[in-house]
Amino acid sequence: MLSKNQVRFIRGLRLKKNRKSQGLFLAEGKKVVDELLHSDFQLDKLFHTEDYVPPESATAQEVSINELKSLSSFATPNQVLGVFRIPESEPVVETGIALALDDVNDPGNLGTIIRLCDWFDIPQILCSLNTVDCYNPKVVQASMGSLSRVRMNYLDLSDYLSQTNRSVYGTFTEGDSLYSTTFEKDAVLVMGNEANGISEEVRKWITKEVSIPQFGKSKSTESLNVAMATAIFLSELRR
Amino acid sequence: MLSKNQVRFIRGLRLKKNRKSQGLFLAEGKKVVDELLHSDFQLDKLFHTEDYVPPESATAQEVSINELKSLSSFATPNQVLGVFRIPESEPVVETGIALALDDVNDPGNLGTIIRLCDWFDIPQILCSLNTVDCYNPKVVQASMGSLSRVRMNYLDLSDYLSQTNRSVYGTFTEGDSLYSTTFEKDAVLVMGNEANGISEEVRKWITKEVSIPQFGKSKSTESLNVAMATAIFLSELRR
Repeated sequence: MLSKNQVRFIRGLRLKKNRKSQGLFLAEGKKVVDELLHSDFQLDKLFHTEDYVPPESATAQEVSINELKSLSSFATPNQVLGVFRIPESEPVVETGIALALDDVNDPGNLGTIIRLCDWFDIPQILCSLNTVDCYNPKVVQASMGSLSRVRMNYLDLSDYLSQTNRSVYGTFTEGDSLYSTTFEKDAVLVMGNEANGISEEVRKWITKEVSIPQFGKSKSTESLNVAMATAIFLSELRR
Repeated sequence: MLSKNQVRFIRGLRLKKNRKSQGLFLAEGKKVVDELLHSDFQLDKLFHTEDYVPPESATAQEVSINELKSLSSFATPNQVLGVFRIPESEPVVETGIALALDDVNDPGNLGTIIRLCDWFDIPQILCSLNTVDCYNPKVVQASMGSLSRVRMNYLDLSDYLSQTNRSVYGTFTEGDSLYSTTFEKDAVLVMGNEANGISEEVRKWITKEVSIPQFGKSKSTESLNVAMATAIFLSELRR
């Protein structure tokens, strides 16, 4: 049986302030939890229904389907919910490619971007302080376990870019075509906010403005979503 | 004032069978509705709140915010809901590039893919009969008006591919790298279902199997979402 306090504590971890004060986050569903169990992330505790077999080493508690529902952030919880420790933030690696996000707000977009970085072997994502928290349950879910393989750093992005030695590429509708851009080996690629793009503050530190050319005739086509634009950029960078 | 019958009729258009029998579909929000009003789509009627100014030529009815909510498929309706006529299906154009979807199920994915085709000037999408209906309100929403600029055809995909003269490319994890593939000028690019990929039935007609190489070391990375994979393919095709 779950106690009321347990339910309250775990549901509380949906909020960033509680995740921060407790140093814990939630992951749900067999696929994501299993991936995190096989990573460097440290498990605090698993809550699972009887059809899930937890690893022997894990602290685990069997619960009913209704109890799992009471803990879950999702409409249809799947077998297991894990409480994991938020790892210490590691220093920024100053070589190679990093993706930087200037206030990306949507959890689904951030989760998708983490998956893309995992796919294209981009080892670190530098997030502005207003970018959505990567330990938000919806981000964890959308990242499908890739969160365990990509280093996440939250920092003052403008400060960081002002002092890095790497080339800084930013995406703007008026930039040069990315198809004719030669990217440096050590580079930071900045993607902007869903509604406002890259902020003026961050733009100051962009050394090269690039764009994805639009092929359609229509000028009214909505600009590409930030996750799609990231997919296209990373593919072009790695090809 | 809206009558109960009006509310029932419009809410009924969320269902494919009613859209089909009535030949009508719903579009919501100022941006999407305005784009459709400036396209070849024919308006049946607009329902709008007082802060929206309908074009003079449009059949329009002002409603309260609560009435608009009662019609809307979304939690936060925005100013206007339009009822538009589903256009006649046009014949398939047999030259150039077409994207083909083999049972893409998720409305958000289809909407995103329609936006991508608009961006990359892919004039037609050939959808298998089990692909989600492009006039589903969530697809219309996610396509952000691009639906008015991309020709949608629903057909027996396997039948169609068996008799086309175009080269047929399909995406498989074991295919040759798309980065070393030279695409023909007249081509059909097939993307598969979210969970199962391309069906065996359709695979028979693929003339060239291609893949997006994975750069990360991890073999456990979840395959890319179909919308992300489409973004990368279309970018590569057009660059």
